[in-house]
Amino acid sequence: MSNTNYRPLWLKGGIAYAKALENSGYHPVEVGLGERDFYVDVQSNSSITMAEAEKVIEKVKYDNLNYNFKVNSEGISPSNENPSFFKVLNISVHHPNPTVQLVRIRGVAFTSEEQLKDYLSWLDKVSEIDHRILGEKLDLFSFHEESGPGLVLYHPKGQIIRNELMNFMREINASMGYSEVYTTHVYRSELWKISGHYELYKDKMLIFNHDEDELGLKPMNCPAHILIYKSRSRSYRELPIKLSEFGHVYRWENKGELYGLLRVRGFVQDDGHIFLMEEQLEDEVKLLVSKTLEVLSKFGFGKESVKIYLSTRPDESIGTDEQWEKATSSLENALKSLGQPYQVKEKEGAFYGPKLDFEIKDSLGRSWQLSTIQVDFNLPERFKLEYVDHNGEKRRPVMVHRAIFGSIDRFMAILLENFRGKMPTWISPTQVRVIPITSEVNDYARTVMTSFRERGIRVDLDDSPETLSKRIKEAYDEGIPYIVIVGKREATESKVTLRGRNNVEIRGLPLDLAVNQIKGEVERRDVNQTAIERLKK
Amino acid sequence: MSNTNYRPLWLKGGIAYAKALENSGYHPVEVGLGERDFYVDVQSNSSITMAEAEKVIEKVKYDNLNYNFKVNSEGISPSNENPSFFKVLNISVHHPNPTVQLVRIRGVAFTSEEQLKDYLSWLDKVSEIDHRILGEKLDLFSFHEESGPGLVLYHPKGQIIRNELMNFMREINASMGYSEVYTTHVYRSELWKISGHYELYKDKMLIFNHDEDELGLKPMNCPAHILIYKSRSRSYRELPIKLSEFGHVYRWENKGELYGLLRVRGFVQDDGHIFLMEEQLEDEVKLLVSKTLEVLSKFGFGKESVKIYLSTRPDESIGTDEQWEKATSSLENALKSLGQPYQVKEKEGAFYGPKLDFEIKDSLGRSWQLSTIQVDFNLPERFKLEYVDHNGEKRRPVMVHRAIFGSIDRFMAILLENFRGKMPTWISPTQVRVIPITSEVNDYARTVMTSFRERGIRVDLDDSPETLSKRIKEAYDEGIPYIVIVGKREATESKVTLRGRNNVEIRGLPLDLAVNQIKGEVERRDVNQTAIERLKK
Repeated sequence: MSNTNYRPLWLKGGIAYAKALENSGYHPVEVGLGERDFYVDVQSNSSITMAEAEKVIEKVKYDNLNYNFKVNSEGISPSNENPSFFKVLNISVHHPNPTVQLVRIRGVAFTSEEQLKDYLSWLDKVSEIDHRILGEKLDLFSFHEESGPGLVLYHPKGQIIRNELMNFMREINASMGYSEVYTTHVYRSELWKISGHYELYKDKMLIFNHDEDELGLKPMNCPAHILIYKSRSRSYRELPIKLSEFGHVYRWENKGELYGLLRVRGFVQDDGHIFLMEEQLEDEVKLLVSKTLEVLSKFGFGKESVKIYLSTRPDESIGTDEQWEKATSSLENALKSLGQPYQVKEKEGAFYGPKLDFEIKDSLGRSWQLSTIQVDFNLPERFKLEYVDHNGEKRRPVMVHRAIFGSIDRFMAILLENFRGKMPTWISPTQVRVIPITSEVNDYARTVMTSFRERGIRVDLDDSPETLSKRIKEAYDEGIPYIVIVGKREATESKVTLRGRNNVEIRGLPLDLAVNQIKGEVERRDVNQTAIERLKK
Repeated sequence: MSNTNYRPLWLKGGIAYAKALENSGYHPVEVGLGERDFYVDVQSNSSITMAEAEKVIEKVKYDNLNYNFKVNSEGISPSNENPSFFKVLNISVHHPNPTVQLVRIRGVAFTSEEQLKDYLSWLDKVSEIDHRILGEKLDLFSFHEESGPGLVLYHPKGQIIRNELMNFMREINASMGYSEVYTTHVYRSELWKISGHYELYKDKMLIFNHDEDELGLKPMNCPAHILIYKSRSRSYRELPIKLSEFGHVYRWENKGELYGLLRVRGFVQDDGHIFLMEEQLEDEVKLLVSKTLEVLSKFGFGKESVKIYLSTRPDESIGTDEQWEKATSSLENALKSLGQPYQVKEKEGAFYGPKLDFEIKDSLGRSWQLSTIQVDFNLPERFKLEYVDHNGEKRRPVMVHRAIFGSIDRFMAILLENFRGKMPTWISPTQVRVIPITSEVNDYARTVMTSFRERGIRVDLDDSPETLSKRIKEAYDEGIPYIVIVGKREATESKVTLRGRNNVEIRGLPLDLAVNQIKGEVERRDVNQTAIERLKK
């Protein structure tokens, strides 16, 4: 983006703005540059409102720029020009230490009104697809200095999306015969030594000493599921044993590589492990591949936008020739019997077994690697896994690691960007907003809201004194799929006006019909606004 | 228990049994005493079955007890008698280090058959109420050497119970207007310094250095919820803001104090925090108290078995006289307006505010402290929390900490013991077991199973060749509330025989009726077997 050209201007504006804050009785302690703005940290025991921050703009002057605060210029010299068109973008609060609270005001400054307008319209466009901005705008999640980078806190609306995604995956997993488990995050290092993570993955793990133990947070759930498998002896009759978990894992990525929800240090996998006999592999993979495609298509990623890669035995690997051949051909046979095209990545399998990866292409043409199915000969060996076969003999099962979403967090980010914040109705935090045209119909509006709520639809009401068009725009900006507008006529006739996205509107619709159709769309988990499409016909 | 008298006998038996293992080609490395048995650790790359372990009993001799394994006698001398009545109780596997696998065989030994019988019947009784034994017997959860003491892994059946409890609490929380959130487990120490946990709670926390940061796992969820509250400015119109979370917290209790699920190092709270204005406190507490009583009564803890304690201002405390008076009288008024008796614990409040505690009495007459409602003036102050009042002025909200179950883990343990493993139908992992009398009606049995399954009832089928009475006993021992028996006559008439607990049985019941009644019992979350009670009438 060409925005970087503005950085000297922003720095100059930031300094002048901070100076104006100082003259207004605030205590700015630092000025610096963000990715697309300047920031001023103000030491304050109370927060600063947007109105207060905007008011200070009037006091910006350039005749005396001596200041006492720190300027973090990152080698950039402030512009010689004096920008006078300011916009405060965001105000947040953080604590660098227990006794100090800093209010961070972020803003931009330009020399012409047109520059400011251009910038704001560019920002608007970027905001539509950047999940980090969408997450803040839609109040879904936040990252905090006090928790640390890459560690996310989900707000109520973000948690609704998480719960919808997990409930859907619960149904999918149950339909495949998985049993859900739940395991602690903390383990003795002993476990990571047995699994091999201690040797191969330690750099990304949180490992530490406490009392007499060395402990490690789980970066993967497999060893925990293995402990459950091993908690009693297993018979061939029980196989395949399929365990699933929404497991919160921690992988300490480099700070510089962190990026919103797409690359974090703590995230939740829709993880699952199958313990099975070799001869059961093909059927299980077939089931998994078809369910994975079903799940992806639910989000609009149909067969044409999904690529499957089969990665085969690398030069360095464990396991016998026979094992590799059987497993690899099981994966291939499964794909073939489904008539599913795939590409082979020669020698790109893990050292412990062959695998399938699913890649989707989103609405912006970008590719994302999501689902994975990995055969594993290694962990059953390391953990001495066994089952008793029909002759009473002890045999070693094969393991399969699998995830469909991959990471719930990352999948949410991809959905947000793919849909530009306009999520399918069933995962939208607010599904319907009711707007009364005048306050005279507030009672009817509340009746309408109750009708939706009683059917389990997430609905709210905007009876604020703003104009109708402003309230409609706001609902649209919040990503709410359906707006239900009610006026006097609707109130008399028990009808509503239903507005979907893309300016589709139906007037004089019986309330019950609207409720039923939207309920159906949510229950079917439709990716499109089928309720209004059907009603339009 | 008088069982400790047997310890010298068990030790002697254990040594002889280990010696017999050695003579049979196994490699015992250690013998020792457990709480109610002896154990032998056998080094082995594969597991040992119960049948294999039992077979070795025949080889026990006392003529030559020279051995090479370690004996951990804990100062107890082996008996001079030679016990010859053995019973293998349990076999498990653990890894003291990555290269060694130990199979632990636990057993007992007595000099007479009567002693053994008495012991086993005593063990049976204890097993009925000890949640640790029930947890193993019912395959609900496990603790592992490799994860460490006090850290629990929930198996599929345990996770069903957890999910039922959490779903119920989700509904309760939603009915009170709570919004669920989800927050990371790892935070910078900075946060714990601001909250005060670093100073007051550090001993029980997992705090460690990683890269340039000092990090701490959350022992409580409140600071995380505060960060969400602070993520944007709040208006009086939004209050009360109510956030809930099934938050997994870690509190490093002393090893010696750990006890099954009743005292662990990691557990999940049904946590919640309210941010409100002082004048909203009474109504919120009223709502909370009545909902808490409603929840407890769902598990059979009616008003007569619940005690409420109000703890008032201690000598050392923060906050003004006025704040304490207002808050304390809000709590009292709430209880009084509900006509709810309570006892005052003078000066036993926390330093940061007054509180209510709920204590229940279980079916064994034991008291448990469960739910809590705590007012907090401290954290809002430390985190400089604010809202904007109707005059546009910034004011400090009050916080309330609350939990109804308290800890999901501990609550599950209490339920298991209270119900002696015979949980109410709605939280039972398996709700119905179908048993065909002869294999000729296996098809019909499967039809019956499908009828239950299609209504969302957790059902399985036991068509094993065991006798009917043995299969019924087994279902009973597994805690399954309903047994559905089908024979030829039932198959012809689309009927079933329904068996509840306490030997209540109804013959010739139309299948649909049985399904509907059990479905109703589950949906109403009845604590008793109302389906069969109603059908009996």
